[in-house]
Amino acid sequence: MNQQKLAQLSTDVTGWLISVGEKLRPGVKAIETVDTKSSRNDLVTNEDVAIEDFLEQQIHEHYPEARIVGEENKKSRVQDLDGLVFFVDPIDGTLNFVRKHDCFASMIGVYENGEPVFGAILDVMENDLYWGGPQLGVFCNEEKLPSVDDKPLAEGLIGASWRQLFTNRFNLGTVGYHASGVRILGSAGLEFVQLLHGRHVGYVSTLNPWDIAAGKILAEALGYKTSTVAGQKVNLLHTCDFVVMTPKAMKEFNALTYA
Amino acid sequence: MNQQKLAQLSTDVTGWLISVGEKLRPGVKAIETVDTKSSRNDLVTNEDVAIEDFLEQQIHEHYPEARIVGEENKKSRVQDLDGLVFFVDPIDGTLNFVRKHDCFASMIGVYENGEPVFGAILDVMENDLYWGGPQLGVFCNEEKLPSVDDKPLAEGLIGASWRQLFTNRFNLGTVGYHASGVRILGSAGLEFVQLLHGRHVGYVSTLNPWDIAAGKILAEALGYKTSTVAGQKVNLLHTCDFVVMTPKAMKEFNALTYA
Repeated sequence: MNQQKLAQLSTDVTGWLISVGEKLRPGVKAIETVDTKSSRNDLVTNEDVAIEDFLEQQIHEHYPEARIVGEENKKSRVQDLDGLVFFVDPIDGTLNFVRKHDCFASMIGVYENGEPVFGAILDVMENDLYWGGPQLGVFCNEEKLPSVDDKPLAEGLIGASWRQLFTNRFNLGTVGYHASGVRILGSAGLEFVQLLHGRHVGYVSTLNPWDIAAGKILAEALGYKTSTVAGQKVNLLHTCDFVVMTPKAMKEFNALTYA
Repeated sequence: MNQQKLAQLSTDVTGWLISVGEKLRPGVKAIETVDTKSSRNDLVTNEDVAIEDFLEQQIHEHYPEARIVGEENKKSRVQDLDGLVFFVDPIDGTLNFVRKHDCFASMIGVYENGEPVFGAILDVMENDLYWGGPQLGVFCNEEKLPSVDDKPLAEGLIGASWRQLFTNRFNLGTVGYHASGVRILGSAGLEFVQLLHGRHVGYVSTLNPWDIAAGKILAEALGYKTSTVAGQKVNLLHTCDFVVMTPKAMKEFNALTYA
């Protein structure tokens, strides 16, 4: 993508996510006034849909040629990655949003003909915006983040989903023992944030395309490796067993795991 | 404890922890310049000892009659809880401190003749101070925190240690499935913080007295229940299998667990 178009895309996407944060943070407090579980779930669905509607509206208005992949519009799921495709996850870490009112993210990943162009993750409650891509590098707000510190498993922590750790999916327990340990955050977006800051050396979880798209762009731009647990290239048209790690940790993971 | 003495204790302990935060945050960045694993561990030990020395010095100076229980002075471990006892954990979540440079706490719990008097937990990197006790209530910085929202397991998340979850210690997997899920943060102090904010409904882990002392005071002051996993009263002279939950979640946990 040419620099002028990319600069505009960056301005647009980061601006939208900043707006999403402003819309969501007051809503988090409103959740506390809703008493029943079913109302709570309704509210979340409403928030999810409202934010996704807002983002889709922006995308359609500013990028009419683009197609959108998101949780709420599964009916129109794209069948290929030709042209400009926006992956939208309005609230990533929904359970944290409902139960903790904390530790959730809003994410957009933009690809052109299947190639990574621009990714952005908003840590909503911290109001920290992570953004960038292969041409721009990666930033936390205005601060440029350094490339991956290529640590082996033994020198870092890995992120995972609790059910997959508990059932030893992918041999995660053994991987955890080879690493310094396992942390469970409950948000793919915030797991990517740990990697962008060099706080974890890897993350393994079964994820949907909109959970992966933005973080994959940012992590790869810093030199992290991504693949399916079986060692295949990630296909953003399908749910997959996803892994992102430092290059050294990825090699060790491949020798330890079973898909 | 009389109000004047308690007010002085509160001023002293919170002031010391604010100083600890000021000492530790620049040190976190310094860690990144140390390359070898052994140096890293040395550095942490140094930091741990330096912070504990500072806190012990303050306690001895201002409360000469008090005794201290902490990780670094195991030799002088107290044999009873008579009089004034300070439990000191200079860096809780050491692995997070080393590996993440984030998500660790500094804690002090004060008991008089075994009764809770005052607790304080500093979330070091967020620079948020949680403090209070049975007479004062509980505060996050200047904001008073509300009493426990007595949710059952099904309406909340629980915290645990990853190894104990993985090995299904205490039947934690089943407890997790009855709850909304499990989160793993790697710091007892920050697990207590989740409870104080009503973000989790419980936390289960095998812990030392200095991991428990401050958070137990604060959580109980908000109406949380604490006990050993076997349902016994917590004895702060010994390591124990510790559980803290909302009253409703505790009842469910007792029916699901095995110690």
